[in-house]
Amino acid sequence: MIGIDWGTSSLRAYRLGAAGAVREKRDSADGILTVPPGGFPAVLRQVAGDWLADGEQQVLLCGMVGSRQGWVEAPYLPCPAGPAEIAAQLTRVPFQGADIRLVPGLVTRDAGGVPDVMRGEETKLIGLLAQGVAGQVCLPGTHSKWVRLEGGRVVGFATHMTGELRAVLLAHSILGRLVQPGESAAAFARGVARSGEAGGLLHHAFGTRALGLLGELAETETASYLSGLLIGHEIRAALQPGEPVHLAAAETLAAPYAAALRQLGVTLREHDPDIVVRGLVEIGRHWA
Amino acid sequence: MIGIDWGTSSLRAYRLGAAGAVREKRDSADGILTVPPGGFPAVLRQVAGDWLADGEQQVLLCGMVGSRQGWVEAPYLPCPAGPAEIAAQLTRVPFQGADIRLVPGLVTRDAGGVPDVMRGEETKLIGLLAQGVAGQVCLPGTHSKWVRLEGGRVVGFATHMTGELRAVLLAHSILGRLVQPGESAAAFARGVARSGEAGGLLHHAFGTRALGLLGELAETETASYLSGLLIGHEIRAALQPGEPVHLAAAETLAAPYAAALRQLGVTLREHDPDIVVRGLVEIGRHWA
Repeated sequence: MIGIDWGTSSLRAYRLGAAGAVREKRDSADGILTVPPGGFPAVLRQVAGDWLADGEQQVLLCGMVGSRQGWVEAPYLPCPAGPAEIAAQLTRVPFQGADIRLVPGLVTRDAGGVPDVMRGEETKLIGLLAQGVAGQVCLPGTHSKWVRLEGGRVVGFATHMTGELRAVLLAHSILGRLVQPGESAAAFARGVARSGEAGGLLHHAFGTRALGLLGELAETETASYLSGLLIGHEIRAALQPGEPVHLAAAETLAAPYAAALRQLGVTLREHDPDIVVRGLVEIGRHWA
Repeated sequence: MIGIDWGTSSLRAYRLGAAGAVREKRDSADGILTVPPGGFPAVLRQVAGDWLADGEQQVLLCGMVGSRQGWVEAPYLPCPAGPAEIAAQLTRVPFQGADIRLVPGLVTRDAGGVPDVMRGEETKLIGLLAQGVAGQVCLPGTHSKWVRLEGGRVVGFATHMTGELRAVLLAHSILGRLVQPGESAAAFARGVARSGEAGGLLHHAFGTRALGLLGELAETETASYLSGLLIGHEIRAALQPGEPVHLAAAETLAAPYAAALRQLGVTLREHDPDIVVRGLVEIGRHWA
């Protein structure tokens, strides 16, 4: 089987052996935003044509390739959902010479009926489930996901747009004016601590500017302070207290979350960030 | 006396009579961002040269003209501060032929020592104090101010960057992608209600996108929903419950705040938005 994690700005293809071992791995910059209309089959042949010619019959795709802007839109599957439910709801893609299917995104609803969605992360979560992970999971990112895994399924989740908000505030708001490049663990910790005080996020964010204007926060510390502030707010709103957090992300993303969680006295379990292939294998096992 | 409210993008000049009556009022687009280095005296002469020639000796300036980007930087004055404290801390501006002074901005510190600042709003607040207003005041804006007035002075305040965050999210984040022009009071109220539920602002904001993707929020309703959500979060974080809120802003800004406050069962007192001249008069009375 071939598994492909096809995102907005890049693509990673795996040729998988019978037992789920990775026989070969390829990276490409052909994220879905670079693919012209009708161009998905050609990109797939370019990336994995030789594997298909060599006899591969099944291709499993996950990520934004299943979004409205992707190859074919794969409808969201409601939670709770595990590998069996996901494998039963794969969306078939028209293609000559192989059976290509898209992993659905997931949709959940909170107690008030308000929806939340994910696309791509569900495959990572199936990978974590396959490793026996249960409880609360945090997948940091532009849009962080806080997820509950129970009974071998994704029970529900909440998205926090922390990473995007930080980027937008630094690039386009008044908070970016007093910023110079730099990293400061102390300023980050100060932001995390501030997030627990009264006043709310909209006030705390402006405080970044007031501190800068009064010379109480260096320009090289401001980005770190804002990160700590926003990640602190995210964790305090999302955390189920009293149980560990399973964290899975690349090092640069995981490190600030790990630091903030430790500062707040939360027990951590860190996982290999490259779990998407494990999820593709697991979904493929139920498909086959 | 001449009083001038000189902001970032515009300027309003008042020629005041002995009893504080407005003899004449002039608007100009010469906000401080349009004034070239060293150009402030020339703009002043252009706007009010005939008044000076006619014998006016005192000019009182408030607003961003006293910021680092303005004519001369007027240091922030610590709270609590009333008209007497402000009049005693005016910053003199070098100018031939008249006594020109800048109103200081205010700085406050919360229980943890974290600072907040305002510049320009202090003059409006002195205007409200002159009308006998006391208690909690909300001045909506790009950076809303929630203020406590007691004993004829500004005791403390908190800034919420709600208006700027809304603009930045709509213009530069993923939330702006599913937006079409439109206003909806129902969607605004839905956002205000959502702000009181669990999950936090970073999660609720992303929910705007999830609702749109699933067709549960129209593109023409999204901007109103986001306004309600952010203003709701601001009010819930800033409000001192159990007492009325004094609201002063131009109608387009005041209307959504009034609607949200009413939805949350808060008693409102609405004030004339053009109170800055009253503040200039009052500070001028202490100066003279």
